[in-house]
Amino acid sequence: MTVREIAAWLGGEAVGPDTVLTSHIARVAKIEEAQAGDCSFLANPKYQKHLATTQATAVLVARSLDVAGVERTTPIAYIKVDDPYVSFLHLLKRLTPVVDPFPVAVDPTAHVASTARLGVDVALGPGVHIGDGAVIGDRTRLAANVVVGPHAVIGNDCLLYPNVSVYHQCRIGDRVILHSGCVIGSDGFGFAPKQDGTYEKIPQLGIVAIEDDVEIGANTTIDRATMGETRIERGAKLDNLVQIAHNCVVGAHTVIAAQTGVSGSTKIGAHCMIGGQVGIAGHLEIADRTIIMAQSGIPKSITEPGKAYFGYPAKEARHAQRLEAAIRMLPDTMRELQEARRAIEELKKAMNRS
Amino acid sequence: MTVREIAAWLGGEAVGPDTVLTSHIARVAKIEEAQAGDCSFLANPKYQKHLATTQATAVLVARSLDVAGVERTTPIAYIKVDDPYVSFLHLLKRLTPVVDPFPVAVDPTAHVASTARLGVDVALGPGVHIGDGAVIGDRTRLAANVVVGPHAVIGNDCLLYPNVSVYHQCRIGDRVILHSGCVIGSDGFGFAPKQDGTYEKIPQLGIVAIEDDVEIGANTTIDRATMGETRIERGAKLDNLVQIAHNCVVGAHTVIAAQTGVSGSTKIGAHCMIGGQVGIAGHLEIADRTIIMAQSGIPKSITEPGKAYFGYPAKEARHAQRLEAAIRMLPDTMRELQEARRAIEELKKAMNRS
Amino acid sequence: MTVREIAAWLGGEAVGPDTVLTSHIARVAKIEEAQAGDCSFLANPKYQKHLATTQATAVLVARSLDVAGVERTTPIAYIKVDDPYVSFLHLLKRLTPVVDPFPVAVDPTAHVASTARLGVDVALGPGVHIGDGAVIGDRTRLAANVVVGPHAVIGNDCLLYPNVSVYHQCRIGDRVILHSGCVIGSDGFGFAPKQDGTYEKIPQLGIVAIEDDVEIGANTTIDRATMGETRIERGAKLDNLVQIAHNCVVGAHTVIAAQTGVSGSTKIGAHCMIGGQVGIAGHLEIADRTIIMAQSGIPKSITEPGKAYFGYPAKEARHAQRLEAAIRMLPDTMRELQEARRAIEELKKAMNRS
Repeated sequence: MTVREIAAWLGGEAVGPDTVLTSHIARVAKIEEAQAGDCSFLANPKYQKHLATTQATAVLVARSLDVAGVERTTPIAYIKVDDPYVSFLHLLKRLTPVVDPFPVAVDPTAHVASTARLGVDVALGPGVHIGDGAVIGDRTRLAANVVVGPHAVIGNDCLLYPNVSVYHQCRIGDRVILHSGCVIGSDGFGFAPKQDGTYEKIPQLGIVAIEDDVEIGANTTIDRATMGETRIERGAKLDNLVQIAHNCVVGAHTVIAAQTGVSGSTKIGAHCMIGGQVGIAGHLEIADRTIIMAQSGIPKSITEPGKAYFGYPAKEARHAQRLEAAIRMLPDTMRELQEARRAIEELKKAMNRS
Repeated sequence: MTVREIAAWLGGEAVGPDTVLTSHIARVAKIEEAQAGDCSFLANPKYQKHLATTQATAVLVARSLDVAGVERTTPIAYIKVDDPYVSFLHLLKRLTPVVDPFPVAVDPTAHVASTARLGVDVALGPGVHIGDGAVIGDRTRLAANVVVGPHAVIGNDCLLYPNVSVYHQCRIGDRVILHSGCVIGSDGFGFAPKQDGTYEKIPQLGIVAIEDDVEIGANTTIDRATMGETRIERGAKLDNLVQIAHNCVVGAHTVIAAQTGVSGSTKIGAHCMIGGQVGIAGHLEIADRTIIMAQSGIPKSITEPGKAYFGYPAKEARHAQRLEAAIRMLPDTMRELQEARRAIEELKKAMNRS
Repeated sequence: MTVREIAAWLGGEAVGPDTVLTSHIARVAKIEEAQAGDCSFLANPKYQKHLATTQATAVLVARSLDVAGVERTTPIAYIKVDDPYVSFLHLLKRLTPVVDPFPVAVDPTAHVASTARLGVDVALGPGVHIGDGAVIGDRTRLAANVVVGPHAVIGNDCLLYPNVSVYHQCRIGDRVILHSGCVIGSDGFGFAPKQDGTYEKIPQLGIVAIEDDVEIGANTTIDRATMGETRIERGAKLDNLVQIAHNCVVGAHTVIAAQTGVSGSTKIGAHCMIGGQVGIAGHLEIADRTIIMAQSGIPKSITEPGKAYFGYPAKEARHAQRLEAAIRMLPDTMRELQEARRAIEELKKAMNRS
């Protein structure tokens, strides 16, 4: 596509010399890495300085940008659009050759229990195993070596990457994406201490229920409930290596970054944003739209929605930053205190003399 | 079963109106979630307030509880037992329809090396691979796509969930449970720096030895020793996504919560309780019955048994809490110090005047 | 081999009574655990005290060590070499019976797409799946149930342990080792928030590129780039359960310990040493030879090479230690401040009186 064709396709306005507007665009790239023949974008004002020097042939910019004011030694084209980043994503999908990693049919080496039910156009890769009584929805595709336990139910249009394990009886909604190595429905960590200091396993008889449009990252683990269900509500997104313990609820459209852990029976609200390596204690409630910054530790419930938290143990973010600043000044503070004490001693002496 | 039948089966005493004692119980449930037809339990006094309002048909309570003192608008049955929680677990197992997720025979697609030995009643799911010279004990069951490396030895009555990897030569005791995706016996992280700043791999020639009655969580990793063995002693329980480095020892009946990491050659005692996301440095010894709270970092050995630790770096818990309280007051402290300094200046001026 | 034969084989000098020099050595062991018949080593001066008491038959020592000065009640042999630890590793490899856990041929149950290409002497275990258009280099060996996605390219002499997942189009160099359960090329965690509070998935169309001589630990996850590549440069070593997000670069010969997470687009330099459970924020640059201590949190770029960092948020290590010491003294500091305030009040009163 030429620059002009891309502008038309995106409903944008092409600005620049005719020789550039008729140039062919082959790739998309970041503004600081783009080469001739690439189309880039400017969404974050922080990157505006790169407009003067980028090697890109064209740049997607906001309609309000004053492109005449940019000083450059070589010509460039601008494509003015409503949302440069969204337009960029559309172009990225259109220009990148996409490989479909999923099977398109049921491989003869896939092993489907005779009592399992497959929907229409289900595709199963080599070495997939579907257990007794399991149900796989229409158009759902499972890559090589995925294992689905007995009586698990997976909805329509799901994508399961290689080596995913879904335990028995778990229920997964529609359009769910599960990345390699994630484990859905492992036993909750429940052991009753006995008099002699050893432990008796508490049976974990509940399930994991994953609602529609959820995406779960690689090697993330979600434990089944002791009874009832561990629930990941619709639209939630979990990154890699996340741990969700038994009987937790992750609210709708909440995002959780990598390596975060949520202890048993905690209920996280909707539309929360939780950073990486966060730890949340058990039996808590986290209000809707809570923001928790990376590596924080949450020891108690958060009842007021929409606030940001930080630290270990976590405090409200502004308070945590004030404490962190105070800690950084602590050696100075201690020196001032010693000076003050000396001054007091001298005052005492002076007082005694007078 | 009716309430009266459950009481008899548990060796308890049923108290309540006859119409309720002959009611049928279909399910168990938490006291705040229970509905008509459910049996719940009261173990933690914190939940006693729910006795007045629970929708449950029956509640398991301690023999000492004054049930006559509970004010309710609708009738309910009490089943008095010695330990309500233990009785509840018995009832949970009895009333919940349990799905057995493990194979009951050797699947024809399981691949067993000709030099491997299988005990009696071993069951192997589809796609299981047993390497050269490996030994699988009596009644042990391996779910789909489990891989057991050459010369590994697994005891009797073990359960391995789908996609577990057991490396060559590792030894696993009896009644061990390994959850999906856990890796037993990967190489320890050992590299010798060379003069040119690159690294030479140190061969990891030891094994992992897991003793009887251990349970290992999903996607947990346990590295083989450089030489000798990394050892998980009898009855220890490890949660999901835990990392145990080469040459570590985890003592008998120690429990370790999710995402905790133990660095190389550290020896953890027996009956310890270690929270989630804890980090323990290498070459340490942790005394028996030590308690380490979540997210703590342990930089040095703990020699006195039975103490609790918290913080990063960890201190004894009471000391850590005192420091945390002091930190929270730090902005006030700094303000007080500035006031004190001003007061000193004024005193000096006053002194000079007089 | 006898002690004398070992000394000759290592190019070292054997010192000790003839009866010991002709003794047979069967095993290697640590100096504090060695028994009769073992050969141990002394590399770290911290362990020199064990020379007087070790049960080893022979000990590898530096040529400069004054072995005549060691007081012992039983005879022992010394083997003087240039580098006792390196010599010990050679001997360890020679004396330990090594099991080769990898297949030596293509198993008939391995599933290779008709458009995939295998180099010479490739070995594939049972249940391995090689996708469309994938390329596997000469002498590379894949253990049971490894999955290689379409159009992925793996170099020569690589070793992939059981249950590894390599996503489509990823590129892996020569002599790379991937441990069980690691996931190479899962989607980056990228979602664009929409007006209604839900998220739209940003397509992750880049790849993961792993250069020569890299080793990746068990259950580690490395996400593919949004566009372009996530890159692990030559000779880097990653431990277990590490998370590398989309578009990151890990520099050559950098080592990263277990459970560390690196957020999106961060570029880590060469020859860095990063401890366990570290968290590094996104879009940062970390200078070459940076040392980051375990559990630290890195919120901003590190521009000066070769410095050590510690803490949450991390500070330069010496500064962090000073702050930690100040925090430990905080209760004392607060007491001193209260005493100072009382002294001021008394001075004021005294002043008023005079």
